[in-house]
Amino acid sequence: MLTANYVGARNIEIHHRDPEPLRDGQVRVEVAYAGICGTDLHIFHGHMDSRVRTPAVIGHEMSGRIADIGGGVTGWKVGDHVTVMPLRWDGTCPGCLAGHQHICQNLDFVGIDSPGALQRFWNVDADILVALPDSLRLDHAALVEPVAVAVHDVRRGEVAAGDHVVVLGGGPIGVLIATVARHAGAKVAVVELDEGRRSAIAKLGFEVLDPTESDQVDWVTTWTSGAGADIAFEVSGAASAMLAATDLVKVRGTVVVVAIHPQPRPVNLQRVFWRELRLLGARVYERTDFERAIELLDEGAIPADALISSIRPITDTAGAFADLEAGKAMKVLIDLGADGESK
Amino acid sequence: MLTANYVGARNIEIHHRDPEPLRDGQVRVEVAYAGICGTDLHIFHGHMDSRVRTPAVIGHEMSGRIADIGGGVTGWKVGDHVTVMPLRWDGTCPGCLAGHQHICQNLDFVGIDSPGALQRFWNVDADILVALPDSLRLDHAALVEPVAVAVHDVRRGEVAAGDHVVVLGGGPIGVLIATVARHAGAKVAVVELDEGRRSAIAKLGFEVLDPTESDQVDWVTTWTSGAGADIAFEVSGAASAMLAATDLVKVRGTVVVVAIHPQPRPVNLQRVFWRELRLLGARVYERTDFERAIELLDEGAIPADALISSIRPITDTAGAFADLEAGKAMKVLIDLGADGESK
Repeated sequence: MLTANYVGARNIEIHHRDPEPLRDGQVRVEVAYAGICGTDLHIFHGHMDSRVRTPAVIGHEMSGRIADIGGGVTGWKVGDHVTVMPLRWDGTCPGCLAGHQHICQNLDFVGIDSPGALQRFWNVDADILVALPDSLRLDHAALVEPVAVAVHDVRRGEVAAGDHVVVLGGGPIGVLIATVARHAGAKVAVVELDEGRRSAIAKLGFEVLDPTESDQVDWVTTWTSGAGADIAFEVSGAASAMLAATDLVKVRGTVVVVAIHPQPRPVNLQRVFWRELRLLGARVYERTDFERAIELLDEGAIPADALISSIRPITDTAGAFADLEAGKAMKVLIDLGADGESK
Repeated sequence: MLTANYVGARNIEIHHRDPEPLRDGQVRVEVAYAGICGTDLHIFHGHMDSRVRTPAVIGHEMSGRIADIGGGVTGWKVGDHVTVMPLRWDGTCPGCLAGHQHICQNLDFVGIDSPGALQRFWNVDADILVALPDSLRLDHAALVEPVAVAVHDVRRGEVAAGDHVVVLGGGPIGVLIATVARHAGAKVAVVELDEGRRSAIAKLGFEVLDPTESDQVDWVTTWTSGAGADIAFEVSGAASAMLAATDLVKVRGTVVVVAIHPQPRPVNLQRVFWRELRLLGARVYERTDFERAIELLDEGAIPADALISSIRPITDTAGAFADLEAGKAMKVLIDLGADGESK
């Protein structure tokens, strides 16, 4: 089979490799599609070299079919459609013991800290498999993981029907948060700098703002009859967006910090104090978010076709990264079924 | 009577003045004691000149007795011991309509935005009076307002019995938060730079840390068996404390922003994201906090005598500000009963 390997900053190599032997407790998944995300791009840029052991088969957004089942595994059969919830927790740290396994203090993120899905036959521990309905197309199912992120973020922000929600940053996760929030009954506006993305988001029926053209605080104040938004999601990673977020929300409103801000960012704490705001960090997902994401995709609530910009063979993984870097693509999938290898 | 008036930066003048005529709906309170707080010090420094109309009779922490009752006021009698909850909301803004009157978008803070308690006879609207039990000494009762701040902060942070709580900044509000949190069953550590304050806080039985001497993150990690604190209260107003606060709390832990940070402060959003932290602004109090504060003072749960550094006559209001500025005092009270005027 072919594997896509991160070998160092800006360098992806395609290697021939035999599938690993299957161990007890594992299932061999024939990967159908794997998505490339912002975190993979961070790895590609070399920003996570302290965490990634090269050559690293990365990839943590995927769909596939069970190809083989290891000893001691029950409840699955060959051919079942599956995805993987790529988190392994230790179960013993204070975070886990308090019930927050998904943000275990020693979390192993599969596809970053251990080998991922950019290989046709991927052996994974059976307990991180999640069943997919046959009715869900496997290309759409490769979006389960990012949709689960959005489901988690919206749940963490306690979005309710009728709420006014502002999403700062209209990349894939921002659009998915907007979609999931709207599906929960919220009115949603997306703030995005890129014109192409704004146009795509407007086509999905969302209010869209260019923060360089209109005063977003004035706009949101008018939109909410003087109150401010119930919830703002900071998904852009930009310092200016984080500074603006607190000005956009109502008395006792919520700002959910979704983006990665590698450096400490100036936050308007006077406004946090004055309006008794709530800032919440939101990271990855819990099992319930994965299951809800599958339901949403299966019922057609997620505009999967609009989000999937292109599907490329594994041999063109480098091209997928180039598309993402250029900001042209929302979601690029790698088709693992088309690797041209006999096994 | 005598009144203490802020007339401009670093300038307090004592004026003779006749009491204002009593209007319908008002009660004339003979002020017994008024406390000087950090906000008053901000006014004294000229930092709030855009908000304060000079000459301004300031003061919003007080206790007293009803001296006269205006038309249409029921439920009170001359001689009743009272304090004042110094908030006036408009009742019509989106914040009020959502039930958050205490942080009304157009809040009138009595003693800042309108005349306050540094006058022997103070006319106040009857609906902001709060009854005091006769069993509570009036000097102690002058602490009701700052105790209510601490009650509100602890309630906002959802402190529960058994929690590990870190208070960053050991001034009067910090010590009151520590006291109220301990009374709720929490284990409390206070981080404070000033040696004199540390010594006073240690005498009250709290764990005390000098952040320049010991690594507070290591200390808290050990104290909490590797978990981190449940809740940190940022009461110092220092940028370094805000940056440290997020490192002190556990997975899904809470940082309550109590202090005023006039400038945006760097916040470790990566940590907020990574541990799914919660940052909460906490401002003033609600009626229930005032009533709880009175109960706590009345049952002796607040070390009022240890907190009251000195009691000065109104003619020495400037000396009270000088004490506070020098960082020597916790709480300085003005004794309004001793103004030497016949009326």
